[in-house]
Amino acid sequence: MSSTTNQVIRCKGKHFILSFVISLSRRKSLVRCLMMSVNVTAAVAWEAGKPLVIEEVEVAPPQKMEVRIKILFTSLCHTDVYFWEAKGQNPVFPRILGHEAGGVVESVGEGVTELQPGDHVLPVFTGECKECAHCKSEESNMCDLLRINTDRGVMIHDQKSRFSINGKPIFHFVGTSTFSEYTVVHVGCLAKINPLAPLDKVCVLSCGISTGLGATLNVAKPKKGSSVAIFGLGAVGLAAAEGARIAGASRIIGVDLNANRFELAKKFGVTEFVNPKDYKKPVQEVIAEMTNGGVDRSVECTGHIDAMISAFECVHDGWGVAVLVGVPHKDAVFKTSPLNLLNERTLKGTFFGNYKPRSDIPSVVEKYMNKELELEKFITHEVPFSEINKAFDLMLKGEGLRCIIRMGE
Amino acid sequence: MSSTTNQVIRCKGKHFILSFVISLSRRKSLVRCLMMSVNVTAAVAWEAGKPLVIEEVEVAPPQKMEVRIKILFTSLCHTDVYFWEAKGQNPVFPRILGHEAGGVVESVGEGVTELQPGDHVLPVFTGECKECAHCKSEESNMCDLLRINTDRGVMIHDQKSRFSINGKPIFHFVGTSTFSEYTVVHVGCLAKINPLAPLDKVCVLSCGISTGLGATLNVAKPKKGSSVAIFGLGAVGLAAAEGARIAGASRIIGVDLNANRFELAKKFGVTEFVNPKDYKKPVQEVIAEMTNGGVDRSVECTGHIDAMISAFECVHDGWGVAVLVGVPHKDAVFKTSPLNLLNERTLKGTFFGNYKPRSDIPSVVEKYMNKELELEKFITHEVPFSEINKAFDLMLKGEGLRCIIRMGE
Ligand SMILES: NC(=O)c1ccc[n+]([C@@H]2O[C@H](COP(=O)([O-])OP(=O)(O)OC[C@H]3O[C@@H](n4cnc5c(N)ncnc54)[C@H](O)[C@@H]3O)[C@@H](O)[C@H]2O)c1
Ligand SMILES: NC(=O)c1ccc[n+]([C@@H]2O[C@H](COP(=O)([O-])OP(=O)(O)OC[C@H]3O[C@@H](n4cnc5c(N)ncnc54)[C@H](O)[C@@H]3O)[C@@H](O)[C@H]2O)c1
Ligand SMILES: [Zn+2]
Ligand SMILES: [Zn+2]
Ligand SMILES: [Zn+2]
Ligand SMILES: [Zn+2]
Repeated sequence: MSSTTNQVIRCKGKHFILSFVISLSRRKSLVRCLMMSVNVTAAVAWEAGKPLVIEEVEVAPPQKMEVRIKILFTSLCHTDVYFWEAKGQNPVFPRILGHEAGGVVESVGEGVTELQPGDHVLPVFTGECKECAHCKSEESNMCDLLRINTDRGVMIHDQKSRFSINGKPIFHFVGTSTFSEYTVVHVGCLAKINPLAPLDKVCVLSCGISTGLGATLNVAKPKKGSSVAIFGLGAVGLAAAEGARIAGASRIIGVDLNANRFELAKKFGVTEFVNPKDYKKPVQEVIAEMTNGGVDRSVECTGHIDAMISAFECVHDGWGVAVLVGVPHKDAVFKTSPLNLLNERTLKGTFFGNYKPRSDIPSVVEKYMNKELELEKFITHEVPFSEINKAFDLMLKGEGLRCIIRMGE
Repeated sequence: MSSTTNQVIRCKGKHFILSFVISLSRRKSLVRCLMMSVNVTAAVAWEAGKPLVIEEVEVAPPQKMEVRIKILFTSLCHTDVYFWEAKGQNPVFPRILGHEAGGVVESVGEGVTELQPGDHVLPVFTGECKECAHCKSEESNMCDLLRINTDRGVMIHDQKSRFSINGKPIFHFVGTSTFSEYTVVHVGCLAKINPLAPLDKVCVLSCGISTGLGATLNVAKPKKGSSVAIFGLGAVGLAAAEGARIAGASRIIGVDLNANRFELAKKFGVTEFVNPKDYKKPVQEVIAEMTNGGVDRSVECTGHIDAMISAFECVHDGWGVAVLVGVPHKDAVFKTSPLNLLNERTLKGTFFGNYKPRSDIPSVVEKYMNKELELEKFITHEVPFSEINKAFDLMLKGEGLRCIIRMGE
């Protein structure tokens, strides 16, 4: 460890040595200088659409306001697949994908005071600097500094990657890159959670599940006994339905083009189903007829513009609120008659369910801990890290909701 | 009065006689059976676009849930002119227009318990039955029973008009028809107000001023110190600006294509002006540059679809709220990228500023009484009833904001 001590001296006393035991890491040395690179296993996307390759990757130490974490569990979300396919995008490869995960802090860089080694954290693809106008606003979670950036493959501190193979950089993904045993994340993108929470369950709260849940609980805010329509019964939509169940909605109408989704959706409190394909008239009219004029709230979780418009037009005049969650095609245009608005309907959109990652996600974990929120039903598959490409296959086939990827062996 | 007594007997005791003195009515008999028709002076629109004609009109007694009121002051709103011009509409003539007014209850029909002769009231073009889902909702003011209906020229109780000339019916307008010394209104369309409030001022709260004020105070809800953009600086937009001033907005940006509006707008707390014609780029970009990313709130009071879209797109991401007030062309289409919504902007519309006529308008009158709300600055002209066509001329020329029409001589 003498070289380590030398390094600390070179770094003008900003670095420190810690005896740190990560119980789940059996292959790593138990005492490690936090300022050293670590060599770990990661799944690298070398090229668009090609299976990930498990590689040994060097992970540099965390720099200013950064944290290096050991990932214990990660899961796969459509957004990973989307940027892996990279259709019509600027390709950013080689890259380490992954953004839903649970881990333990291994070391912290300069300026990090909120977290320390051993803390349990969920990395989040968008951050909270706590200083910009958005972070200071009660309403927004769209941090100016740490808002999602899918094109950037480097850390914001020095515009460099912390991952390399033989000195060649491997790019980051949305500041998280959780398909690696260790990753480096800006402190503003880490939610410090209850250490008793099982990371193999709460890891799914890093993205889609919180997005859908928050869209309902934080934005649509249905009252007890109200009716809610959910468009799109993927993981995000089912989490929105779970939010409606928690809020005490009496009718939860699931809308999906895929009839297979309906059986599954019942577990999430969905009480009625509408498949737009079964009707000649627009689905908003079908829903208005079912509900004496429209639902009290709707949440759109498809990413398709037609569903967005239907979700808006199916809410009741006078008080109806529609919330858009799905990420649309960049050229999509939302069109409606302004009379639908003048009749006192509200249209909103949300990003990450309006949760502020650091301030709010710990309390979502508590909702799971006190059994208000059920996460088990979202987890339909599990694979070891070495079989991560199976998780991609499942998602491409549209099977299940979340596949947990175990890093620990 | 013997025939009157006979009539009461015929009506099975539902009717009653009252000694009733209307101090301002010198030409009428001071004691009158409430169940008799009265012959009064009214301004009749015989044909689309032709000057109104002052006529003697018979006003029947109020029927079930109706109230007959003596109008003391009325004012002219664009909506009167619009339905008088009747371009591209089903013409409903002859008709008595008028919907902004202040009056005194003369008599009440069966079932009316909330009002009694002598009460001061403002008639409103939309009503509040207090029993439908909208009236019971805290959020809506779009009463199922009494919601505005511009095509109907009769009372809802019996589908008949209470106005006639030589037995020939003259049609009602939006349930108010205030261009008449006496009119009959559904009790649900009457706000009972403080009898000390000067009716020649508060009469303007029947429509446009409350609409703009409520759009800001009830729907946009700007916080103290925030920035607000107002599109359209007519009476409605200036009332929206007045709402922003009352709410303590620090920047009130007025947007209008008519540069003449700007001088006037300063009186209403408007701090900055933007004329879209002065710029090559879209006005939403101009405003975003002026405000470091967008205003906190915007209120659209033009009725033009371009302004509606600009008003939405000029609000800040994360927390911006845009409120549409203007009544658009029926074929207008609101178009925007859904990304503008996903970036956490909110789009709403309002009808009559979300005020419930009976429950809320009395408190708006109190805002004027306690000097929080300034109404004098909206009143730019005044004419006697006999010169009501001058009020139309002023509005057609775009001169001033509100012209008060004095009925009392
Ligand atoms: N805003 C955010 O912060 C955020 C975060 C994560 C995901 N998302 C977005 O949420 C959306 C849903 O994500 P997911 O993982 O649940 O996706 P998913 O593909 O698993 O589910 C989408 C469902 O929508 C259905 N669908 C598609 N078009 C439809 C239509 N016109 N009408 C009805 N149903 C239709 C599909 O059959 C599918 O079951 C995606 O657009 C995703 O990008 C947003
Ligand atoms: N929702 C309701 O309950 C309700 C009630 C009353 C009035 N209104 C509506 O409110 C609107 C305003 O009423 P008003 O009486 O103040 O009208 P107005 O004609 O006096 O004022 C409208 C102003 O908007 C300006 N304008 C027009 N197009 C514009 C554009 N593209 N950009 C910027 N400015 C533009 C005009 O120059 C004018 O000064 C109307 O559409 C009216 O029908 C709605
Ligand atoms: Zn921030
Ligand atoms: Zn995701
Ligand atoms: Zn009602
Ligand atoms: Zn009006």
